[in-house]
Amino acid sequence: MKVIVTGAAGFLGSRIADALLSESSPIKVTDLILTDVQAPQKRQDARVVTLALDLTSSSAASHLIGSGCDVFFHLAAVVSGLSEADFDFGMKANLDATRSLLEALRKKSPTAIFIFTSSVGVFGGNLPPVIDDLTAVMPPTSYGTAKAMCELLVNDYGRRGFVDGRSVRLPTVSVRPGAPNTAVTSFASGIIREPLNGIASICPVPPEQEMWLSSPNTVVRNIIHAATLPNTVFGPWRTVNLPGITVSVGAMVEALKTVAGDKVASLVSYKRDERLARINAIVPSKFDNTHALKLGFFVDSNYEDVIRMYIRDDLKKSK
Amino acid sequence: MKVIVTGAAGFLGSRIADALLSESSPIKVTDLILTDVQAPQKRQDARVVTLALDLTSSSAASHLIGSGCDVFFHLAAVVSGLSEADFDFGMKANLDATRSLLEALRKKSPTAIFIFTSSVGVFGGNLPPVIDDLTAVMPPTSYGTAKAMCELLVNDYGRRGFVDGRSVRLPTVSVRPGAPNTAVTSFASGIIREPLNGIASICPVPPEQEMWLSSPNTVVRNIIHAATLPNTVFGPWRTVNLPGITVSVGAMVEALKTVAGDKVASLVSYKRDERLARINAIVPSKFDNTHALKLGFFVDSNYEDVIRMYIRDDLKKSK
Repeated sequence: MKVIVTGAAGFLGSRIADALLSESSPIKVTDLILTDVQAPQKRQDARVVTLALDLTSSSAASHLIGSGCDVFFHLAAVVSGLSEADFDFGMKANLDATRSLLEALRKKSPTAIFIFTSSVGVFGGNLPPVIDDLTAVMPPTSYGTAKAMCELLVNDYGRRGFVDGRSVRLPTVSVRPGAPNTAVTSFASGIIREPLNGIASICPVPPEQEMWLSSPNTVVRNIIHAATLPNTVFGPWRTVNLPGITVSVGAMVEALKTVAGDKVASLVSYKRDERLARINAIVPSKFDNTHALKLGFFVDSNYEDVIRMYIRDDLKKSK
Repeated sequence: MKVIVTGAAGFLGSRIADALLSESSPIKVTDLILTDVQAPQKRQDARVVTLALDLTSSSAASHLIGSGCDVFFHLAAVVSGLSEADFDFGMKANLDATRSLLEALRKKSPTAIFIFTSSVGVFGGNLPPVIDDLTAVMPPTSYGTAKAMCELLVNDYGRRGFVDGRSVRLPTVSVRPGAPNTAVTSFASGIIREPLNGIASICPVPPEQEMWLSSPNTVVRNIIHAATLPNTVFGPWRTVNLPGITVSVGAMVEALKTVAGDKVASLVSYKRDERLARINAIVPSKFDNTHALKLGFFVDSNYEDVIRMYIRDDLKKSK
């Protein structure tokens, strides 16, 4: 299979590349193009080509798909905080670039499977207590707006047979390794990661704020799983709310205490940031996982295990 | 108030112009630009300028909004049948042209009220028995897809204060005067209009098919009403499902019989068109009107009165 991953220099993109190249990958990869604005790290694997490409440039999409494609993982995106600060750039990168990719696939590889990584950030406004697949999106940010618009486009391209499009809505990923980013949910990794690295972390939302979370491992498995499902299982709407777990910020810190001790957990302090608290208060935190689980998607067992996974897989590397 | 109406040569656009120019208009119009691909009919009113403009051309939006705008009614659209037949043209006219208008308003008239006419065609797929404001859109057509994408854009422009955007989802309008069009619901006017004009009409969907309908008068009042509401009433989602009434096609023909007699009604015959029957079967026909009625939107009392309205307002003119 010829596979392309955008945003491949990013944290999830590079994990997806690792998973695709591993022997246990459910997709048998013969060629893997990894692309990002800056060229992703080279790999010791003859199947891999790395490519620096700005997807907002007009010829990028057709260049990227020039030699065909069987499975396309589109992870490149401008994160929520930056999209909100720069509307035009956010729309160009999150909406227009996705549209160009869909068009290029339609012309050159209409049988390709296109996985679009959307987000629970599409939800907002007047929400029911538990989100399910019949809940309307009312994005509270320009990031969520662009993601929701792309879901519609991916669905219509899929329905028309222009490309085999599928969208997965990612929960907030925690614990992300590395540095904080400008996502409005960046703290959901920071309050665990920083203390485990001996650094104080300020939580900008109150402890009772509930989050909808998935570990990196589970999210990566799920994004790849979306590409292995038969076309027919999606029915009339090719968007799936990926499974997650509901954890309050207070419970996240409690889990940190259980796993790593009081001293580590005491590095977290709360200082409300009005903008971040307001945006996070309207991001939903409870979903009905039934549909996704029926489709074979995976879910974390509990947040303590998620922290242990971070310690096992990432903490040593970062030290 | 400086008011602009696109699609003003069309049936609804021209009715909106009539209503805005009448003494009883809730919007006091000082200048009215009426535009369409072909110039709308000239009017004996010094406030009116008519303009032929192709909104898919690159300079159209800024040209149109060049001298400012207080209220913008965007009715121009490629109908559902044509959008489905020509995806690229549909997206250009229904999505890109709307986006250009929003951008031009953002730059030149950010305080303008922008009314986007969406459609119940955004709904499809797995639907609850009754649609309400928390029901997800899963458009079964490219027309519905573009409308749903524009709703998201209008909402975000409104939220950010780029323009005071509001979207109204129109029920199927019946009885439309004039000729059949390529909308997939064209028959919902044809089975009443043609018999009243002494012409046989073939209904492509079965009599048990239920429709979500509004009379032209009520839809026109509601589109204008949307522009008179205070900005604050919309809350986090600037899209309203306009009120309508649920009527089966069989009951529509029964109503025709009651109003116009057996002989007229006998001009309707049923001959299933597979494509139209399939698309209409997934367009929803039952909505909860609570939210819209609370906002002061209007609703028809019953379908017989809707037919009588057509006879009173349109039948004589067309003869």
